[in-house]
Amino acid sequence: MSSVWGEYLKISLFGESHGPGIGVVINGLPAGLEIDRDYINRELARRAPGKSKLTTSRQEKDEFEILSGVFQERTTGAPLCFLIRNEDKRSRDYEELKDIMRPGHADYTARVKYSGFNDYRGGGAFSGRLTAPLVLAGAIAKKILSAKGITLGSHILGIADIREEPFDAVCLSSSTLLELNAREFPVLNEEKGLLMKEKIIRAREQQDSVGGVLETAVVGVEAGIGSPFFDSVESKIAHLLFSIPGVKGVEFGEGFALSRLKGSQANDAFYLQDGQVKTTTNRCGGILGGITNGMPLTFKTAFKPTPSIGRIQKTVNLATRQEVELQIKGRHDPCIVPRAVPAVEAAAALALLDLLLEKEKKA
Amino acid sequence: MSSVWGEYLKISLFGESHGPGIGVVINGLPAGLEIDRDYINRELARRAPGKSKLTTSRQEKDEFEILSGVFQERTTGAPLCFLIRNEDKRSRDYEELKDIMRPGHADYTARVKYSGFNDYRGGGAFSGRLTAPLVLAGAIAKKILSAKGITLGSHILGIADIREEPFDAVCLSSSTLLELNAREFPVLNEEKGLLMKEKIIRAREQQDSVGGVLETAVVGVEAGIGSPFFDSVESKIAHLLFSIPGVKGVEFGEGFALSRLKGSQANDAFYLQDGQVKTTTNRCGGILGGITNGMPLTFKTAFKPTPSIGRIQKTVNLATRQEVELQIKGRHDPCIVPRAVPAVEAAAALALLDLLLEKEKKA
Amino acid sequence: MSSVWGEYLKISLFGESHGPGIGVVINGLPAGLEIDRDYINRELARRAPGKSKLTTSRQEKDEFEILSGVFQERTTGAPLCFLIRNEDKRSRDYEELKDIMRPGHADYTARVKYSGFNDYRGGGAFSGRLTAPLVLAGAIAKKILSAKGITLGSHILGIADIREEPFDAVCLSSSTLLELNAREFPVLNEEKGLLMKEKIIRAREQQDSVGGVLETAVVGVEAGIGSPFFDSVESKIAHLLFSIPGVKGVEFGEGFALSRLKGSQANDAFYLQDGQVKTTTNRCGGILGGITNGMPLTFKTAFKPTPSIGRIQKTVNLATRQEVELQIKGRHDPCIVPRAVPAVEAAAALALLDLLLEKEKKA
Amino acid sequence: MSSVWGEYLKISLFGESHGPGIGVVINGLPAGLEIDRDYINRELARRAPGKSKLTTSRQEKDEFEILSGVFQERTTGAPLCFLIRNEDKRSRDYEELKDIMRPGHADYTARVKYSGFNDYRGGGAFSGRLTAPLVLAGAIAKKILSAKGITLGSHILGIADIREEPFDAVCLSSSTLLELNAREFPVLNEEKGLLMKEKIIRAREQQDSVGGVLETAVVGVEAGIGSPFFDSVESKIAHLLFSIPGVKGVEFGEGFALSRLKGSQANDAFYLQDGQVKTTTNRCGGILGGITNGMPLTFKTAFKPTPSIGRIQKTVNLATRQEVELQIKGRHDPCIVPRAVPAVEAAAALALLDLLLEKEKKA
Repeated sequence: MSSVWGEYLKISLFGESHGPGIGVVINGLPAGLEIDRDYINRELARRAPGKSKLTTSRQEKDEFEILSGVFQERTTGAPLCFLIRNEDKRSRDYEELKDIMRPGHADYTARVKYSGFNDYRGGGAFSGRLTAPLVLAGAIAKKILSAKGITLGSHILGIADIREEPFDAVCLSSSTLLELNAREFPVLNEEKGLLMKEKIIRAREQQDSVGGVLETAVVGVEAGIGSPFFDSVESKIAHLLFSIPGVKGVEFGEGFALSRLKGSQANDAFYLQDGQVKTTTNRCGGILGGITNGMPLTFKTAFKPTPSIGRIQKTVNLATRQEVELQIKGRHDPCIVPRAVPAVEAAAALALLDLLLEKEKKA
Repeated sequence: MSSVWGEYLKISLFGESHGPGIGVVINGLPAGLEIDRDYINRELARRAPGKSKLTTSRQEKDEFEILSGVFQERTTGAPLCFLIRNEDKRSRDYEELKDIMRPGHADYTARVKYSGFNDYRGGGAFSGRLTAPLVLAGAIAKKILSAKGITLGSHILGIADIREEPFDAVCLSSSTLLELNAREFPVLNEEKGLLMKEKIIRAREQQDSVGGVLETAVVGVEAGIGSPFFDSVESKIAHLLFSIPGVKGVEFGEGFALSRLKGSQANDAFYLQDGQVKTTTNRCGGILGGITNGMPLTFKTAFKPTPSIGRIQKTVNLATRQEVELQIKGRHDPCIVPRAVPAVEAAAALALLDLLLEKEKKA
Repeated sequence: MSSVWGEYLKISLFGESHGPGIGVVINGLPAGLEIDRDYINRELARRAPGKSKLTTSRQEKDEFEILSGVFQERTTGAPLCFLIRNEDKRSRDYEELKDIMRPGHADYTARVKYSGFNDYRGGGAFSGRLTAPLVLAGAIAKKILSAKGITLGSHILGIADIREEPFDAVCLSSSTLLELNAREFPVLNEEKGLLMKEKIIRAREQQDSVGGVLETAVVGVEAGIGSPFFDSVESKIAHLLFSIPGVKGVEFGEGFALSRLKGSQANDAFYLQDGQVKTTTNRCGGILGGITNGMPLTFKTAFKPTPSIGRIQKTVNLATRQEVELQIKGRHDPCIVPRAVPAVEAAAALALLDLLLEKEKKA
Repeated sequence: MSSVWGEYLKISLFGESHGPGIGVVINGLPAGLEIDRDYINRELARRAPGKSKLTTSRQEKDEFEILSGVFQERTTGAPLCFLIRNEDKRSRDYEELKDIMRPGHADYTARVKYSGFNDYRGGGAFSGRLTAPLVLAGAIAKKILSAKGITLGSHILGIADIREEPFDAVCLSSSTLLELNAREFPVLNEEKGLLMKEKIIRAREQQDSVGGVLETAVVGVEAGIGSPFFDSVESKIAHLLFSIPGVKGVEFGEGFALSRLKGSQANDAFYLQDGQVKTTTNRCGGILGGITNGMPLTFKTAFKPTPSIGRIQKTVNLATRQEVELQIKGRHDPCIVPRAVPAVEAAAALALLDLLLEKEKKA
């Protein structure tokens, strides 16, 4: 297992859901960067549960500590290590699950991979809880990008079978994105948003869960970031997105829908606006040949429904080698999508910053 | 730009469409592996154009040479370097395009990134031609996987707005996949296949192009391959898939459709078959927590329509800084999807082999 | 700055001398490994100061905590994070040194590299204190190697101008090495050892310091570990050794002395012993072509004298841009060599384990 | 085996001594760099044999071809691939050696590592011939450094037991270094040089070989390049140096000799010269805390004697499992040191360029 990622920026994730703590070490940050603890806390708060009926009632205080890399509230250039202590652990809830493989979870695959030595409590190293340090690293990355005029934002494109309209990928302002950043349940269309919330609440009532799709946009990225092949913007962002628990699909620009079009429809025509090269449409999501073209970057991330549900499920007990019925207790999210927003943005911010640092070294 | 990929297996891609040659260096191969030149040539032939009306009439002989790493037709353990010389180049076709940015292509983004020093002829380093060395590396990887009982295969799930049924992800045999491997236009439903071909031929007649979607499956992968987070099976495969020119969407298992389901529908129930853990459905595409669960691995790859079309398009000339109309001449694929099959399989095979080598080292 | 190292085993170091804590994240450990806290503590104790007149009187309790990767006292396969809290910090000692560049230290180079934002207290991220987490990671590596029959050990070959005889690189037992492991001042020749200690004590009295050389041996390494070129045993070990503060020279086998010999003297003749290939001499230090040959692996590491000395030194004040005289106060090691033993062994153990995991994946 | 090296600059080496060809792929070069083929050829010529009695009479024409990454004689930003075809191969010389392990060579270790599948002819992937592509990559790196005012140069510090004086590490001009670059047998003291040559010629007459030491200096490197720990200047340079066949020792500044000094002697005092920070001595070789301090960077590289000698040697035949006597025929270098100069400089140039690109990205 390698929980290390990145080339110019390198992050090293650690922790398990019910162990002493979780965290991340970040290498490659410039020295002298001001640490905005309020901003970091706001980002963490965005993924925190327990805020409403839409999420688990489990409390995760998620107070972070910076163990290294910061002196007098500025980065020193040395590796920055964030630590969050685990609290409010109800490890006993999991003891009886030890040998019973929860469907949709990593219990079985982890057991095989790690020969049964994995920490099975609360999903261990597979827990969505590990997105908290990702969000911490992402908060640093977003701040750096922000200083370069780059803004990220997301809306909930859909929950269950409800869908709202995607971003207008041609005309998209940073203020729209920042406004979305500030909201607990970011949607473009409030009515659709209500329908989505209803779906979540109903799922909760039914001891069930629902999935959904996030759409994320990045504005202010100059043209020329990324590379063909293995360092394409799509490759880098998708790599990190698919590391977030529950993500099963990623598309850039119009993605799968592009596959239904003709070239004459799909190609975004170039034109000049005040001497700057622009495209009249933006079906490619701001990326051509793996490199940004200066238009807003857009992508969608599909989440499966939370696998932890209260309903009775069929599965196996690997100690007794028997088929059994399982009813998961405990406090779980009926839908992970709203809480996943900062993690998805963190993934994109980290990928872009890594590519940006690559570009900058050539300047 | 880094055209180096991989951890335990490392590949280093090189070449430009109209330069002297293209190739790949592969590190980390076991010594003693027999080189099956016929098999490699068959894989190369699968992506070769000029075979029918469905592809460009451009001939790419694509004869490969092995420069190192093979002695007496077996791998030596040293880096294996494949070289394909470029031939049938009509570089003049591109001279007049030098300053005119082809929509949907990397002309503009490459020009910005490389300050105009990129080899613009035929897309240079951004050309789909670079998938030939990827297919060579993939042929080696597929052979190694094959010896471990792992088989990859794909079908064309859709072209333009035609869609056929996806694989039955629960009951999927290696013989079905191998049969698909042998076909030039692999589909599960011949009638749908005819409709798809029609779409391609019509697009060609209209000097236009169409996109499509491939579905790929891998059978015979044991449970326990992959990791949570950055080395998840999804992250590794998606990273390589998104490096293939034209790919704009990737989903695993039921992907985006999963986002519309409830947990009680999406979770694949475990059961025991002859003492082996199986799932009754396989919506997750054989991957839980980033690790294979022993069920067939399935994913879909969405391709945008080939951006090179004969129709008149609006764009800009960056030498004169004027908006212009462009009509691309030359011989182009009306649809890249059928030729992309071996590249997609190469990506998956390389990603899986890299993860498999990681697993084996722990044994 | 990248404090991440390794291919199959990946370590990520963090911390600064006077910050909240120092630590290391280790990726790639096999699951199920028993954690021997006593052994780890013994390794840490070997580098701990304050034990005698030979070292600084500064106390570093160095109690480690495991934040992740261990469950029920066995590794889980997830990243293992070690944390040591910093204590007994006298940060004020350094406040007045802020702008005065200590000769032989990284004060000036760090200030330039990090634009003055580096944590200058106690050497910050450059401190020898960072070898504590290296020793922690090394303790884990040594335990794994030990289970494979591999033993590392070192003796102090020289302090100042005193030199004792090197290891007999042909006949070298693990028991000799283990015995050296247990000693605070490991030498082969006690008389020479006394002379060396005298040199250190005299240096201390003179408010000065001395350098020295360690020789390290590894027995039980099978033939076939390593690679030509960039993964040569020498490259990997030297890379880590030269990351230890104060190391200025590394040689394998007879090293620099080999350069004075003829080929007929330097070549180690092969012979067969009970069917096993051995060499009659071992001038190459057990490595040919970057790969182990099964004979004991030996290397020497040269340390410069501790740069912190009480004597008056000439230097510059970069705030006033003036040349000044400096007298360093505080508690410093008159010689770092004895305390460096476990760090050097950790470097070698980590490098060898990384290469061993590479080899194993081929099996 | 990984023949891939580097972070910001990535090189991928390939080839075997008697295979079709050898080469290197370089990633991370800036676009627009002029390719100076004359310069590259001069660098290659420096390592070419057959020029005098001091080297093997074997002719290696070493004509390089650039397969990618260059367009209109400038780098494109895409990976640059150099290829040298192997010629003048006398593979039969090696057929009879197949099972007889040459002492001092990698025959035995390679056979074990690669289970006998390695290309044993001429040392295969272990051959010093692989330093030719390293020199090609180094020529590109040296040119880039040169444009930044950085010059590398070396002299032969010693052959067998002859030693000349080291560089004056405080006062060292680029013109001195460039002058040394132009010489076939670069020494500072001609008389000593004659004695060294005599040693080589005598060794040749005696069908023996000799080792030696190179000293290399780099002037014009600004302060602030490198990092503490794993990206220290020493770690990076030593890693590459120890990948050169025959290197058994590396020291920076006064290296091993520093271990004999007191801190008051070893510390280089800082002073101000025209407002610039300098040191009065330069015992540390221009590196403090792994980072350059702006003074000349100096290091020494120890080579063992060429293991190929005509004298009768004792060894084993692994086919018959018998001890045998071996007399190596063929044309071999009585001393590799003079031909190793450009390889050593290439290693240093590549390491420094990699670190420089890291620094630049922060600017």
